[in-house]
Parts: sequence; C-alpha cells; structure tokens
Amino acid sequence: MNLNEAECRSAFAVARVARLATADADAQPHLVPVTFAVDGNHVFFAVDAKPKRSTALKRLRNIEQNPAVSLLVDEYDEEWARLWWVRADGRARTLPDPQAGADDGGSGREFAIGRLRAKYPQYADMDLAGPVVEIEVTRWSGWRFA
Amino acid sequence: MNLNEAECRSAFAVARVARLATADADAQPHLVPVTFAVDGNHVFFAVDAKPKRSTALKRLRNIEQNPAVSLLVDEYDEEWARLWWVRADGRARTLPDPQAGADDGGSGREFAIGRLRAKYPQYADMDLAGPVVEIEVTRWSGWRFA
Repeated sequence: MNLNEAECRSAFAVARVARLATADADAQPHLVPVTFAVDGNHVFFAVDAKPKRSTALKRLRNIEQNPAVSLLVDEYDEEWARLWWVRADGRARTLPDPQAGADDGGSGREFAIGRLRAKYPQYADMDLAGPVVEIEVTRWSGWRFA
Repeated sequence: MNLNEAECRSAFAVARVARLATADADAQPHLVPVTFAVDGNHVFFAVDAKPKRSTALKRLRNIEQNPAVSLLVDEYDEEWARLWWVRADGRARTLPDPQAGADDGGSGREFAIGRLRAKYPQYADMDLAGPVVEIEVTRWSGWRFA
C-alpha cells in the first residue's frame, strides 16, 4: 500500500543512508549511497572526507548537467511482509560556498552542515570543507508491503 | 579503496536487495529496490507479485525508452570504516515471454526465474508470471572505506 506524504517524510528523515540517483545529459543513470539530513522538503548531503573513488565526482558533474535526482530509502527484511521504501524526487544544486562569494554569505551551506553534524556523530571529527548539495523535494512517494 | 571486478561481482551476487536506477528519455532518474539474481555479467529481476504502487510500472517504461540502468548494493554501518558499495552499470531488456512468441521459446526467461527461485525461498509460493528483466552489466565498480 502507498504511504502518505507525512509517513514518507518521517520514515525518510530518520534513515541512516539513502541512495542517490543522478543522470547525465545522455540519460545514463548513476547511483551512489549518501549520508544525508532532512529539513522539511529539503535534503542535504556533503561531499565529505570519506575516501572517494575519485575527486572529480560523477554525482556533482551530473547534477550540474541535469538537476533532476531521485533518492531512495529502503530496508530489506527476509520477511517480505515487512518491506517498505520511500523515494524523494527533486532537483539538486550545490550550495554556494562563501569562499567563492556566495550570495547568502554561505548561510545555506552552514545550515546544511549543521543538520548533518546533528544527525551523524561521525561528522564531529570530520572535515566538511567540500561541496554541500541541497535537494528540493518535489515529490515524496512510498510503499509498504501490507 | 576501489574493489576489483571479482570482488565487486561476488559481493553483489550474495546481497539480498539492490536499488535499480532507470531514467526516462528526459533524463529524469527513477529509483526502486529490487530483489535480484546474478549469473556472470547478467543480473535478473522479476516484476513479482509483491504489491505495487501501480501495474503500469515506471521502471519498465523507462527501460523501454532508455535501456541504460544502474544497480547499487551497499550496507550501512555506524562504524563508517566498514562501509562499502558495489555498482553495476549496464543495459536492460525485458526477456521475451513464450506466450508472446519468444524467439528463444522463453528459455532465457525460464533460466532467470530459476535463478531467482534458487536465491529467494520467498519465491517458492509466489507467482512469477509477470515481466522478467535482464541487465547485461558492462561495468562493475565498487568501493570500501579502508
């Protein structure tokens, strides 16, 4: 059965990991897991100091080419009657960095970092000097088996 | 650090759930969790009898418009040094159904269903009369924290 928007948002917000799908201009999808924080209809994630496969990140290049993204939270269980998922579709942008002359003086970026640090104690000791992405969710959808 | 292809394939094959990203012709990504089975460089999933949000499934419409897909397996752990993921990028097609006059008499579809039933005891009692999708993986990539 379908979940309503409030159910979607609350289940999504407390999940510890989401999967981010982006697509390049040629509609080739790309997937990566992300740690994230939610504020209302905004989802934030940072390019943090976890080691990466490369520094020129495909996820950021795709967002620049094509801001349409999708995020998924789900939990697997061998008892399939317990399965559920929530998807957040929206548009992504990299938040301006004050060191690059952000219009807002970097307050959007600082807010997002604050939410990430509040959710993940792991971020306490971690540098968050890299890009921070904000997704404006335009559609929440969700499902549970029964 | 990056995982090599053999590490990617073996970690992916035994995972119980993957997330499937498709994109429509306008490059809007779409995400859904899927149960799946692997044989070499092929990944199979079925549109099974788990309840769905709708019967005209966006994942299948997208594959018809644009066969480029990405699948992700990952496991979250609060100890971030244990994080890992594996991604399989490839091209998807719905396997011909013998009732629709499949060229191969439906043997590809039957093979895929056999792999799915072998992996998931949950499929023993479940009708698998719906579409079955095969993904030919063209690139395995994976990462673990350390």
